[in-house]
Amino acid sequence: MGGRRTENTGDLVDRARRGEHRAVARLISLVEGASPQLREVAAALAPYTGRAQVVGITGSPGVGKSTTTSALVGVLRAEGRRVGVLAVDPSSPFSGGALLGDRVRMGEHATDEGVFIRSMATRGHLGGLAWSTPQALRVLDAAGCDVVLIETVGVGQSEVDVVALADTTIVLLAPGMGDGVQAAKAGILEVADILVVNKADRDGAAQTVRDLTYMLSLGDRSGRSERPAGADPAAAVGLWVPPVVKTVAARLEGVDGLVSAIEAHRDWLDRSGERGARRRRRAEAEIEAIGMEQVRSRFSHVRGSAALPALATRVVDGELDPYRAADELLATLAAAPSVIPDPARPTRR
Amino acid sequence: MGGRRTENTGDLVDRARRGEHRAVARLISLVEGASPQLREVAAALAPYTGRAQVVGITGSPGVGKSTTTSALVGVLRAEGRRVGVLAVDPSSPFSGGALLGDRVRMGEHATDEGVFIRSMATRGHLGGLAWSTPQALRVLDAAGCDVVLIETVGVGQSEVDVVALADTTIVLLAPGMGDGVQAAKAGILEVADILVVNKADRDGAAQTVRDLTYMLSLGDRSGRSERPAGADPAAAVGLWVPPVVKTVAARLEGVDGLVSAIEAHRDWLDRSGERGARRRRRAEAEIEAIGMEQVRSRFSHVRGSAALPALATRVVDGELDPYRAADELLATLAAAPSVIPDPARPTRR
Repeated sequence: MGGRRTENTGDLVDRARRGEHRAVARLISLVEGASPQLREVAAALAPYTGRAQVVGITGSPGVGKSTTTSALVGVLRAEGRRVGVLAVDPSSPFSGGALLGDRVRMGEHATDEGVFIRSMATRGHLGGLAWSTPQALRVLDAAGCDVVLIETVGVGQSEVDVVALADTTIVLLAPGMGDGVQAAKAGILEVADILVVNKADRDGAAQTVRDLTYMLSLGDRSGRSERPAGADPAAAVGLWVPPVVKTVAARLEGVDGLVSAIEAHRDWLDRSGERGARRRRRAEAEIEAIGMEQVRSRFSHVRGSAALPALATRVVDGELDPYRAADELLATLAAAPSVIPDPARPTRR
Repeated sequence: MGGRRTENTGDLVDRARRGEHRAVARLISLVEGASPQLREVAAALAPYTGRAQVVGITGSPGVGKSTTTSALVGVLRAEGRRVGVLAVDPSSPFSGGALLGDRVRMGEHATDEGVFIRSMATRGHLGGLAWSTPQALRVLDAAGCDVVLIETVGVGQSEVDVVALADTTIVLLAPGMGDGVQAAKAGILEVADILVVNKADRDGAAQTVRDLTYMLSLGDRSGRSERPAGADPAAAVGLWVPPVVKTVAARLEGVDGLVSAIEAHRDWLDRSGERGARRRRRAEAEIEAIGMEQVRSRFSHVRGSAALPALATRVVDGELDPYRAADELLATLAAAPSVIPDPARPTRR
């Protein structure tokens, strides 16, 4: 039981797809840690990905993101759905910190076989969250999660990159923490597919909802994508106007309404063809992040390359100009191992 | 005369080697501007380089670097030697600013056929001065300059990179602007082959010379190179102990002594084998700077590559994992034109 078994990638993927928690956790560790098996794992996962609905949950600190996430997990589990949680917010209770004093605690989900929780606290690995989060997402997707919730703090470029991964983005607000005008200024109306006014039992909640609804009515929105109006498949099924949902997540009030809104958005994504567009953008961002990391990794080898002294001698002797020398240097680096394992490099069997 | 003649690289190099100023200026523009002809020019120059003695002149603002440079040009020209000046200091009068009110002006050299003056003010081109200065140096070297003086302000990494190009590094101090202890703290004793106390007619000059001489006597120096003592060819000819030279460059006092010190250092470089070591280090730095610039340039193409959408679609469809997609993306980028012209790319004839 406690012993370390030989890791066969195909076996790990099979076990993860059957819902074995340890296999899922191990695969995420392999992909986020850039292990030598990374490419093998990625190739083995590829045929099983693209099924989960990815829901991003963002908002300022204190609006109730973790409580809302936990409440959503509860409702989705009651419907029998397999749920993954990626907590990118380092202050999230899912990120290993102390649980908050909320009535709804993740503790109740921790022993649930149908819930997979993973903290993606910023670890400074490789390209950071923009690199590691989509990798972890692919594992949860292949492991058969129907929904993956990505919880982020809505500040900073890393979080924007993570929001870009989502099929559906939920932006949380709380009365008194910033009204609709502030939300508009912060640009969150642009990224929100669903707006949630949490802590809706507080003073000013109704006004915040009115402000948001009014501001949404002003915009000529068509979801987050920028497309010409002409041959737009979304036009036939209508544009998506973000609903404004009131919740008191700590008392589970309004959470069913939020789940209904998520389902409505999922249906709209399918009918409009927007799901495919978002997935392609997500894949582009992921490929870019990997490619940039590989380039950056090789770049770090330019200084101190072992091939350099011999090339320098040939330049000094006038045999070679420095441009051709640089070409030869880069050719040797292209063959050198990258931080991200190279395809040619053998991995453990 | 005023017309733009067809630029044949070989012809330009021939004219530069005959000492034609316009050809030299044009070649420097081609190499520092990363023109499509850059590689052709570099290849044409290679066989003619490695002959000039490269003398770096550095020190804090106000110590008299430009005046000293101008004075050295005068003495070297009186000996009939062809001299190049690369002014990296943006405040230098050679850099296009107003001439200082010194008695010795570069104006008197501006019409001298045997002097080539080029400002290398920071222009933000490519990799900056670390990239463009060695390129310009190669042109002056191939153009037959016996000595190339590189004047830099002794602050910042760019200037340190430039000092690393020199065969002989002169560090200027002035009394009252920083005594020997400050010089030692700033690490300039480590890089200096020759120390100059300029403005030596001022109070405190003798004390500055004594301080510097004392501190040099404390160190177990062997020039700037870090080599084990054992099979060191320099050991047979003795170590180089930096002389401390007093000058009043504005009145041309002590400049002959400085020229003698430069010649003594040149002889030591030849006898000790240190010249070859420094030239190899210089070539290494140059190859690295070109290689890093090429990598950085391709890196900038990762985002927004035209190949990306098709790769993303294959990833979404599960046909390809994102690592193999990134490999294919980088392969297309490797074939794309770099800011530094690629060898495969045809140039003008």
